[in-house]
This record gives sequence, C-alpha cells and structure tokens, in this order.
Amino acid sequence: MYRFIFISALSLFTILSSVSAQSRSYVDLVNPFVGTKNMGHTFPGAAYPFGMVQLSPATGYLSMYKDKEYNKKVYRYCAGYQYDDSFIYGFAHTHFSGTGHSDLGDFLIMPTTGKVNLNPESFRSSFKHSSEKAKPGYYKVFLDDYNIDAEFTTTKRVGLHKYSFKRGDSANIILDMVYNIYNHEKKNVWTYIRVENDTLVTGYRQTNGWARNRTLYFAMSFSKPIKSYGHKKYEDVVYRGFWRKFNEEKNFPEMAGENIRAYFNFDTGNSNELLIKFALSAVSTEGAIKNMSAELPDWNFNNALASAQDKWEREISVIEADMMTKEEMETFYTAMYHTMLSPVTYSDVDGRYRGLDQNIHTADGFTNYTIFSLWDTYRALHPLYNLIMPNRNADMIKSMLAHYNQSVHKMLPIWSHYSNENWCMIGYHAVSVIADAVISGNLKGVDIDKVLEACVNTSNQRYFDGIGDYIDFGYVPADGNSSSVSKTLEYAYNDWCIAQIAKVAGRDDIYTTYMKRADSYKNLYDSSIGFMRPKNRDGKWRESFDPMDTHGQGFIEGNAWNYGLYVPQNIPNMIAMMGGKRRFEKHLDKLFTMQIEDKYIKHHEDITRDGIIGNYVHGNEPGHHIAYLYNYTNAPKKTQNRVRMIMDTMYSNGVDGLCGNDDAGQMSAWYIFSSLGFYPVAPGSGYYEIGSPLVKAATINLPNGNRLSIRVKNQANDNVYVKRLFIDGKIHKGHRIAYNKLLSASEIVFEMSDK
Amino acid sequence: MYRFIFISALSLFTILSSVSAQSRSYVDLVNPFVGTKNMGHTFPGAAYPFGMVQLSPATGYLSMYKDKEYNKKVYRYCAGYQYDDSFIYGFAHTHFSGTGHSDLGDFLIMPTTGKVNLNPESFRSSFKHSSEKAKPGYYKVFLDDYNIDAEFTTTKRVGLHKYSFKRGDSANIILDMVYNIYNHEKKNVWTYIRVENDTLVTGYRQTNGWARNRTLYFAMSFSKPIKSYGHKKYEDVVYRGFWRKFNEEKNFPEMAGENIRAYFNFDTGNSNELLIKFALSAVSTEGAIKNMSAELPDWNFNNALASAQDKWEREISVIEADMMTKEEMETFYTAMYHTMLSPVTYSDVDGRYRGLDQNIHTADGFTNYTIFSLWDTYRALHPLYNLIMPNRNADMIKSMLAHYNQSVHKMLPIWSHYSNENWCMIGYHAVSVIADAVISGNLKGVDIDKVLEACVNTSNQRYFDGIGDYIDFGYVPADGNSSSVSKTLEYAYNDWCIAQIAKVAGRDDIYTTYMKRADSYKNLYDSSIGFMRPKNRDGKWRESFDPMDTHGQGFIEGNAWNYGLYVPQNIPNMIAMMGGKRRFEKHLDKLFTMQIEDKYIKHHEDITRDGIIGNYVHGNEPGHHIAYLYNYTNAPKKTQNRVRMIMDTMYSNGVDGLCGNDDAGQMSAWYIFSSLGFYPVAPGSGYYEIGSPLVKAATINLPNGNRLSIRVKNQANDNVYVKRLFIDGKIHKGHRIAYNKLLSASEIVFEMSDK
Repeated sequence: MYRFIFISALSLFTILSSVSAQSRSYVDLVNPFVGTKNMGHTFPGAAYPFGMVQLSPATGYLSMYKDKEYNKKVYRYCAGYQYDDSFIYGFAHTHFSGTGHSDLGDFLIMPTTGKVNLNPESFRSSFKHSSEKAKPGYYKVFLDDYNIDAEFTTTKRVGLHKYSFKRGDSANIILDMVYNIYNHEKKNVWTYIRVENDTLVTGYRQTNGWARNRTLYFAMSFSKPIKSYGHKKYEDVVYRGFWRKFNEEKNFPEMAGENIRAYFNFDTGNSNELLIKFALSAVSTEGAIKNMSAELPDWNFNNALASAQDKWEREISVIEADMMTKEEMETFYTAMYHTMLSPVTYSDVDGRYRGLDQNIHTADGFTNYTIFSLWDTYRALHPLYNLIMPNRNADMIKSMLAHYNQSVHKMLPIWSHYSNENWCMIGYHAVSVIADAVISGNLKGVDIDKVLEACVNTSNQRYFDGIGDYIDFGYVPADGNSSSVSKTLEYAYNDWCIAQIAKVAGRDDIYTTYMKRADSYKNLYDSSIGFMRPKNRDGKWRESFDPMDTHGQGFIEGNAWNYGLYVPQNIPNMIAMMGGKRRFEKHLDKLFTMQIEDKYIKHHEDITRDGIIGNYVHGNEPGHHIAYLYNYTNAPKKTQNRVRMIMDTMYSNGVDGLCGNDDAGQMSAWYIFSSLGFYPVAPGSGYYEIGSPLVKAATINLPNGNRLSIRVKNQANDNVYVKRLFIDGKIHKGHRIAYNKLLSASEIVFEMSDK
Repeated sequence: MYRFIFISALSLFTILSSVSAQSRSYVDLVNPFVGTKNMGHTFPGAAYPFGMVQLSPATGYLSMYKDKEYNKKVYRYCAGYQYDDSFIYGFAHTHFSGTGHSDLGDFLIMPTTGKVNLNPESFRSSFKHSSEKAKPGYYKVFLDDYNIDAEFTTTKRVGLHKYSFKRGDSANIILDMVYNIYNHEKKNVWTYIRVENDTLVTGYRQTNGWARNRTLYFAMSFSKPIKSYGHKKYEDVVYRGFWRKFNEEKNFPEMAGENIRAYFNFDTGNSNELLIKFALSAVSTEGAIKNMSAELPDWNFNNALASAQDKWEREISVIEADMMTKEEMETFYTAMYHTMLSPVTYSDVDGRYRGLDQNIHTADGFTNYTIFSLWDTYRALHPLYNLIMPNRNADMIKSMLAHYNQSVHKMLPIWSHYSNENWCMIGYHAVSVIADAVISGNLKGVDIDKVLEACVNTSNQRYFDGIGDYIDFGYVPADGNSSSVSKTLEYAYNDWCIAQIAKVAGRDDIYTTYMKRADSYKNLYDSSIGFMRPKNRDGKWRESFDPMDTHGQGFIEGNAWNYGLYVPQNIPNMIAMMGGKRRFEKHLDKLFTMQIEDKYIKHHEDITRDGIIGNYVHGNEPGHHIAYLYNYTNAPKKTQNRVRMIMDTMYSNGVDGLCGNDDAGQMSAWYIFSSLGFYPVAPGSGYYEIGSPLVKAATINLPNGNRLSIRVKNQANDNVYVKRLFIDGKIHKGHRIAYNKLLSASEIVFEMSDK
C-alpha cells in the first residue's frame, strides 16, 4: 500500500516538473553498501551516473602487504573497500565497480590532524559502520582517530570533499600518489604535483597496470589557503639533478617521482570546515581545471549533493518498479544504481579525450566512454541500456568505434580501459552490443558499412586469442590455446552477431560467411559423451577430459556442463544436437541439482557455494542465460521457477547481497531484466526470453515516450509461474517478447499462479 | 686572393637570388668535427639551423659501463660522440652541442645485416674516420661490420637516413629505446612503440634525467615495407597483464616498457637502399606525423640535403668574413655553425608545443625554442643573435616569457630544457638577454610592463639559490650557500639588467631599487686582501680562503682571481674599488702570467692546461670578458694582445679545436665577436668593447638592410694592435662601439700595427 501512495506522490512531483529532495524516493532505496562484503567488488563511495569520478574510501593499502599475503589481498580490494575492515586509509577518486580484476584507485586523499605522518599505517583512521552513510552521490563517515566528519559528493568529473574538523584542530590533507589498487609491484610509472597557488594544486599520475599506459590528470582546489606543504619520495633510485639546490620537501611547489606522498597544512581558522574540489581529466591538468570550472564553480556542498541526487533520481526512475517488499525494492534500485556506475565518461567538458593511440581527440557529437568489460556486459547490461537509454548506448558504441579507429590492431575493444586495451577475457563482444543496437534501429548517424568493416576486421585479427586457428580449423584447437571451447563458442555467437549487422547493411556475402562461422560450435560437440569438448589441431578430441572441471578443460570460468550450453544464436539446434528437448531438459535438471565435489570449487576465488545452485554458477557470466533455456524445452515453467529461485537466493539488499563480482553491472542488469519478467538471452536477436517477474508492477519510461506498464496479477512468493501473458489486453503466445513490441505496447500483464 | 674571387661569386649568386649547390662556399668551410675530440662536447651529425633534430652517431653506450667507469665516461659523451672511438652504436636524433652536462640521445637507430642481435656490444660496428664526412646538414659513414653506407640529412623537425646495403644482404633496422646520454641509472620512465602499418612506426619516450619530466614523440617512416619485426624488454620487473595472451616479441604492433629495443627486417629487393624519415614532436605522435608530412613529403635524399645546406648557407653567410688563412676561415665558419645548433625549435609545424606546465600550448606569432643554457649564452651568444638575427632572438625571448607564464615558480628560465627547467648553474640571466634586446629596440610586440614583471618576479623568488638571503643581506652568505660570491656577483649584474629594462619601461621606482641591488658586489670586496671574498651571515669574512682555489671558496667554475672580476655593469667602479687602473692592470697581468699549481687544476674535469693562460681559464665562461677589461686601464693594447692570443691558441679548425665545452655556442660566439674586433662585455649596455680583429675583412648583413663592412688594414699575425679606428671615414675615439652605431654605419676600418 505504501507504494501506491509513493507513486502518486511521485507523479505529482513529475507534473510540477521538479524533482525536489523530498521526491528522491528511488535514490533513498539504494544501498551502495550492497556487494561490499565478500566478493561483490562494489564500492560505497560517492559517484555520479556514468561519471568520471568514483570518490570512495580505501580500507586496504596493498603495498603494505608482501608476497603471498599481498596476492591474497589484491583480489579482495578490487574496489578498494571491504565491509569487514575497520580502518580507512583515505578517499580515492577512481574505482571499478564489481570487476574481477583490479586497477585505478587514483589520488588518495586523507585528512588528518596534528603532526603529519606520511606512513599509511600511521595516517589511517579507524571508523565504525554506524557513522557511515552511503547514498547515490553521497558518502559520509566519521574518522575516529581524528574527530573528522568526512562527507563526499561529486559531479560528473569533479569530486567534492567536505571535512569538518573539531574546532581548533590543525588540519592536514595528505595526497598519497603511492596508493594503488593493483597487484603489480611497480605500477607507478611517474607522478607529478604542482602547487599552482595557495588554493590550487594540479598534477598527474601515470601507471603501468592492467592498463599499460594510463595517465590521469587532476586539479585540486581547497576552500582555504594552504598554510604550508611538503612531500616525500618513496623510491629506490632518486635522481635529483640540480633540484638538489632546493629543499624540495618543504613548501616547494613542484614535486615529481615514481612514488610520492604530499601533504598540505591548513589553519582551520574561524570555520572548522575544509572543502576540496578534485577534478579529473585524461587529457591534461588544463582539462581538469576546465572540468572543475564548468561543473563546480562554487563551494556549495549541499547544492552539489542535491544536483547529484536529482540526477540519480532521474536516471534510476526510468523504471518505476513496485515490489512485494521493501527489501526487494532496495535490491532492485541498488541494482539499477550498480548498472550506472560504469562505463564511465571519458571525455572532458570540451569533448577532448585521450585516445587509444595516446593522442588527444575530440569526441564529435558524442560523449566518449571507457570501461567496457564486454565479456560481462554484452549479455544484459548493454541490452538494458539499449532498452532504457539507447542514445547513451549509441554513444558507448561510438566510443568503441573511436577505439577501433585508434587501434593499431584494428580491433574493437575487448576491454576498454582508460585509453588502453587490457585484453581481459575472451570473444569480441563489442559486435554483440553493436548488433543489438543496429537491429533495434538505435545506432544512428554512423556509416553502417564502416561499422560492419570494424566488426569484420576485429573478427579476422589472426593473432588475437586463436582467431587465426579458429578461422582455419573452424574451432580454436585445444593444443596451444587455453579455454579453446569457450573461445570457439563465443566467437561463433559473435560471428552470428556480425551476420545480423551484415543483413541490416545489405551485405549478403558477409552475412553468408558469418552465418557459416556462427555454426562453428558444432565442431566441438562430442556426441559420444554429450558435451562440448576441446579438440586438438589434428581433429582428435582431447583425451583427458572432465566435464565438471573448470580448470584447463577448454573452458574459462565455467565447465562443460554449464559453459557448454553457450549457443545463444541457435538454441533449438543446440538442443537437437544434444539429443532433443527431453534429454536437454534433463541435462538442465541435473545441472541445477547435482552435487559438486569440493575439488571443483577450489579454483574459483570469486565463487563460493553461496553463488551456486547445483552446478549452476550465477556468480560468473557464462551461466546467465541457462535458466532461460528451459523455455526451449517442454518445461518453460522450470525457467520461471529457477529464475525466481536465483533472484531470491543470489541477490539481497545486504552488504553481502551479491553472490559474486557485480562485473561492472552485469549481475545487476540480470536482476533488473529478470525482475521485469524477461531477459535478453541472445543480444542481437531482437527478442527477450520470458521468465518470471519479481515486480508487482513497473513502468518503464521508454525514451520514445512510451510508458510501458508491467502488471503482475497474483504476485506472491509462491506464485512464480506465468499462467498467462497479455500484451495490451491480448494474450501473448510463445516464450519470447520482441524488442519492437515493447516500444509500442502500453501494458504487459503477467498472470501468475503457484502451478 | 681566393677570397676575393669567392666573394664576387657569392655576390653574383645573391643577385641571381639563388643559392645553388655551387655557391655553398661557407658551408664547405664548416668542419662539424671541431670539438669532437676531448671536451668540446660537439657532435658531427646532421643538423638544421636551430632544428629540432640533431641526427648524430653514438660512439659510446653508457649503460655498458658500470659504476666508477660509468661516471668517468658519462662526461665524455655529453654529445654522444668522441673522436677517439672506433665503434658506432647507432644514430640518435637529439643532442646537446657543447654542453657541460648531458641528456638527450633519443631514438637510436642502428642498421645491421644478417641475424638480428639486440645487444649493443654485438650490434655496434667499427668505422674509420676516413669513411666519415660531415658538413652542415650532412653526415656520412661506412659501417665496416655490415658493409653499409650510412648517410644522413635533416629538415628542421625530420631526420632522413639513407642506408645503402651490399646487394643481396638482408637488412635490419634496430630502434633502441634503451640508449641514453646520461648519468642516471633509471633514466627511462616509459617507452612506447606502435607499428601503425608496414611502413610507419610511431612512439614516444619519457625520461627522468637532467630534465625531470621529458617526453619526446616520434614518427618513423620506411621507404620499403617492413617484412617482420619484434622487440625485447630489458627491465627488472615486467608486468604483462593479459598481454601474455600474445607473443608480443614477434610481429606484434604494440610495444611498451621501461627499456625496450625493437628491430625491423627488410628485403632489400631490387634496390639496396633503405631510407628512413624520422620526425620528432614534443606534443604527440600525431604532431610528429604532421611534421613529417609538412617538411619531408617525398623520398628524395638529395633534395632534402640541398635544402638543408642552402638553409645553412643562408644562415651562416649573414657574416661574410675573409681571414688570413683557410684554417681561420674554417675555424670562423665552424664557430658560426656551432652558434646555430641550439637553442632548438620546440614547436610543431602547427605551432603547438608542450609547455613547462606539461600542457599543450600554441605559440602564437612566434616559434617556440628550448635549450637555453643561459649562464653560458647570455654573454655573447644571445648578443650575437641580437645583432645578426634579432627577430629570432626575440622569438627566443618570447619562448622564455612563455616559460615564465607556465612556471609554477613564476621564474624566467635558468636552463630551459624541453618543457623542463633543469636549474643548472647560477644567476637569472634571461634578464640579461631581455635587457640586451630591449635596449636595442629589438623586442617588439610584447607588453614591456609584463616583461618587467617577469624579470622582477624572477629576481624575487626567495627560495631560488640564495635570492632571499641576497635580498636580505645584500649578498649571498657563505654559510649555507655554495658559490656565494659568484651568485652575488651575477645577481648584481642581473639586477642592473632589470634596471635597464625598467628605465625603458619608464618605471623609475624599479630602476632605483634595482640599481641599488646592482651594487651588491661591493658587499663582497675585501679591500684588506684585494679580492672578492665569501662573507658569512654574521657579516664576517669566511676565514679559510684561498683566492686560487676554485673549489668551495664561494666561486663556481672559477676562483677569486678571475671570477672576482665579474662586475660588467660597473667596471670603472670595480677598478677604483680594487685600487685604481694601475693596480688593476697589474692584477690582470698577474692573472695572465701566473703559474697555477696542479692542485688547482685537478677539480676541473673539463679544463686542461690547453685552455689556460696563466690563471685565465678560457674554457669556462666567467673569464670571457676578462681580456677586454684592460680597455678600462691605461693599457687597452693588452686587451688586443690577449684577445688575439686567445683566438690563436684556444681555437682551431681541428677535431680538438675547442679548449673546453663549446657551451651551447658561447665559446664559438666569443670567437666570432672577437674575430670581428669587438665583444659584448656587458650585455644590456648597448656597447661592445673593442678588441683586435682577426678577420681581414667582413661584411655583416644586418637585418635592417645595412651591409656593415669591416676592413682591417695591415692585418697580420704580428699586427695585433689597433692603431686607429675609423667609422664611415671618421676616426673613432674610446674603447667601445655602440650597437646603434653598427645599425647605420657603412664601414668600420681597423688600422693595425705591431706596436
């Protein structure tokens, strides 16, 4: 009942054309702490939708750990924060959300009082969760050791810090350029700090990490004049040249080195508050200053916070959902939030950005984005964008095409990472994102022939990850290539995507070629054992083979039981190949119910038994379509049952509410689609598979102006089965809904039952 | 007599408005090998007047030496080449000319044949001087080990290599990014190479050397397609990330790391020639490609060479000199050549350059230059430019003002070094260069008030090298500051320069203040011993003091005997202070004749007995004005005598023709002025001191159109004394000539005698 009142209230505010603080009801439902415990790899800090800045606390400081301990820790701190920790080392400005590999953590700021100590083990502060508050665009914590109230908000490109010191305390700000999120002992390549005047500091950091050549610039402005400052270098070899003329360590306005920590002292004076604007740019310090001037000209923390939260409210209210419980509401809107933390804006206010070729380019007519963790996000995250924000998704595709144009490999991004390609994971899934947008008619203003050329060239780059062999053999041979089955299956799906683009472009020749390549999965099905199986160059199956093992068996982050089911482009044929609907249904039944021996789990650092149903692993992407495969058997009800079970058991509104890495929003996007009752099993097909909605009702405010209403009759925890489905009052047959249908339909009604 | 014919021939060509190959008689007189033996620190390679590229052979490879041996070698290889060597390691694209400290050596290219070996000790080749040829804009050598004829020329920003292989040999080009000229074990910060296509390679190198944050970009184009290529990394810690997916070492188009060496293989095919265009940019690889397209669109080596040599001919023929011997002609025109190797052009063809703030700026209405070794070059090199190329000198000053605007220290350059300040040596002599141009009326189109503000701010930067103390005490105290007397003397002269600018700007207040500061030298004269002497903070003279010692006695690169005479702004008062003309003359006599004990020489790694006359050290700049000081005594003839002696004994056309570092052209500029019969003892005064000309005749083609003729009657080796001096037929009294006089005079006649 409270939801009804709420929605009415919101409608009223919408009519008034003003989203005031009171109306931010969806924002209030978001809990940024979800996933911060265990391996969700999310962060609780202040962020802006698709913003350049993610201003979040660091509760681990990796360089403090050595060797084995270090390697164990590094995975925990992919997002810099672990809920179980009790110390904060500072607040850094860039973070991945939910990734399974780490980088970033740029520009750690730590406020302290008293004598400056630059040792992280000394300058860190204890904190309590009771003093923490996190909301979209906002993070707050009390630093026990220093009696400092620390609050944060952010614009798209500028973080805003507000530190309230105890009256009379001397205030220090540490700018730690050594802090890094990463497992590499020499990540910093170079760092540079300039004290431009008594309130403005600029600089940059260049790192050799997961991104090999990454440089990020900053401009930092203080609300009070710096009283004194200094820095120390922490490196093996220091060459000073004629800089030895100076006492560089104190009040000297230019600092540089591989590893430096700077500090700035302030008189708290009449006011005990110190604010810091911290702007980023990938172009230059000049770019960072421009970003700051354009986005955050004044010092009003509350205004900035209200702007950020209003923006979040507008973004996440694109889906107005009503669910059975407040917990589910929080889970849903936290998922919405988590789908909008990345990809991140990667061009300055003037459109300039650092390209993959390390030259400065101007994004002409689009916003440039980076962080495309495509092996994860092509599955549901980009399809979600394609549905609810197709223009932004098109800008992301334009960013991928710019990446292609700047790529010396002539390849679309595999994993786009701040002017770098980090080559993580497999497949060339940019083509999936593109195909999904192209067949939806959502990729406008680009030359389809050039787009197709980019896809074709990418898929023919022989030295990438077995593509040459894949083309020559029709599969990636197991000898000489790891994960050979996974790669073959994904390439085959990717090639089907390219065929779909070719069809739209009217290029029948390419369509034919790529539809043939899309059948490559057939070459790896071993009918004698009923599994996809690694095959050697000589055409013989790899002999030692355990379909349960995820390790060294031709698969990556999966095994033959689950990853072997990855033929989204032709599920009916896969099922036929595997012995028909009945047999396939049994395969799925067994998959969801079998007991896995412990030995098969140990390899997964990011999967616990919590993220597993039988041999189904929700914490990793290769399984994300599996529950929907029952739709192609005689038992679509089992899809409905399993999907609800996954939503119920794998997601929650708690700090441990994610069963594995959020994977840049893919896990959350799965939840959003599934909650609405459908899921994009084959992006590029133009269809969603129908599951079992978790919402009671929802309105999707489609960008074409259509307010698509989803109503669920008889929604209840036990009523997981879809008895009937009506679209605009007419009964809908089949297990799929077309994307085009959603664009024009007014109402979808799910009629639920417990049978 | 041959000179007479020559000059006529040149005049004819000038009339024809065409400097053809035949007319390049001055270029033919230049011997770029002068100074390559011992400590001249010049290089023989191909260069363009004030060009960005200095394409020259490397005969040492410093990283091959370790520890003590390394430190000994590093000084020898400031310009990468030592005449006594017999191996060439390759050809690098950036070199200082004549400096006493080292850096650069970017992008070493070595051609080889047969199997590629990336070890410098293996890929180097022996060579003989007999196969070498060096002329302005041209260098050639035969690489014995590979039977390769290597030839080089250059445009302003693009080096052109031409390698002629023995027919049928396989050809390799090594691009060695590890090679460095410098004494720092970790100079490379990062390097990056991209194989853009089968003829184009781009990349950059970032170094932490004498310039702390230096990045230089390149674009390299081959005249033939690359057949295959690869690289190796030479570093302690290699993090590969997901790049381990690839065999990065072979035919993989993206290479990066701290220390890498790449190679490219070619089929020599029908032609046995391989040409390489190698363009530089401080902005980006895009900038380097633009520079290449603009300056060297085709592959015609001879045309490029002719252009370079025509340009050199035009530049050095600004002074048409005739001398007594061919050796002197060669010495003179080699000196002219050496004055035009730096400062170097430091903006791209589109005017963009990397500023001191590391941001990209556009030089609006001027060419941006770098390499301002001002402690050396303010003395005679910039005064020479101010006379013969005032517009270029004004551009250099505009570059200094841009440096100031970008400086976080709000200081004009001390030693401008590729977007860096390296802080080498003492004083703030940019103000001298500016004063000299301002009082000559040669600094147009800039706001004199802003110029003055830049000078004033520079001179008040308290944390720089004792300036705070200098202002407070009236001298740099000896306790807590090395070279305290040298600094005081130079600051005092610099302050007098600022006063001259203030006078032109009509700022009497500043004039008065700075004329007072200009008297600071008085505070360090100890009349009880008759020397400038270091003084402590408490106003007491430093007790232990040896006026002969150059080490730790308040002076740098000089001692109290010679450096103590540095009061160019008020020589008459200095002489009065030192006891009057007679006593001062005796001081000078003794200075030029005294025997120095060996113990006083050992500290000078760059001064040998060859560069010394008595206690006069010509190899270092603090003495450069001293021979002219006799003009202020009753014995100006001794100036004439000593100046001729210095020219005769300290300069020659041989490989050891410089008695010390050429110091970015200052030593050569001293020779040019002195050869013409006058020298700028006090830049900013508008006057030159008259010495004793070495030329028989000379025409200075002044940029205002005036062809100033200098004629020397009775010129002979023994006729070193100027009996009478006529300007435009009228006898000239006094020991000075005004700059303004030269602008309008037609003829200066020196009448020489042996008495």
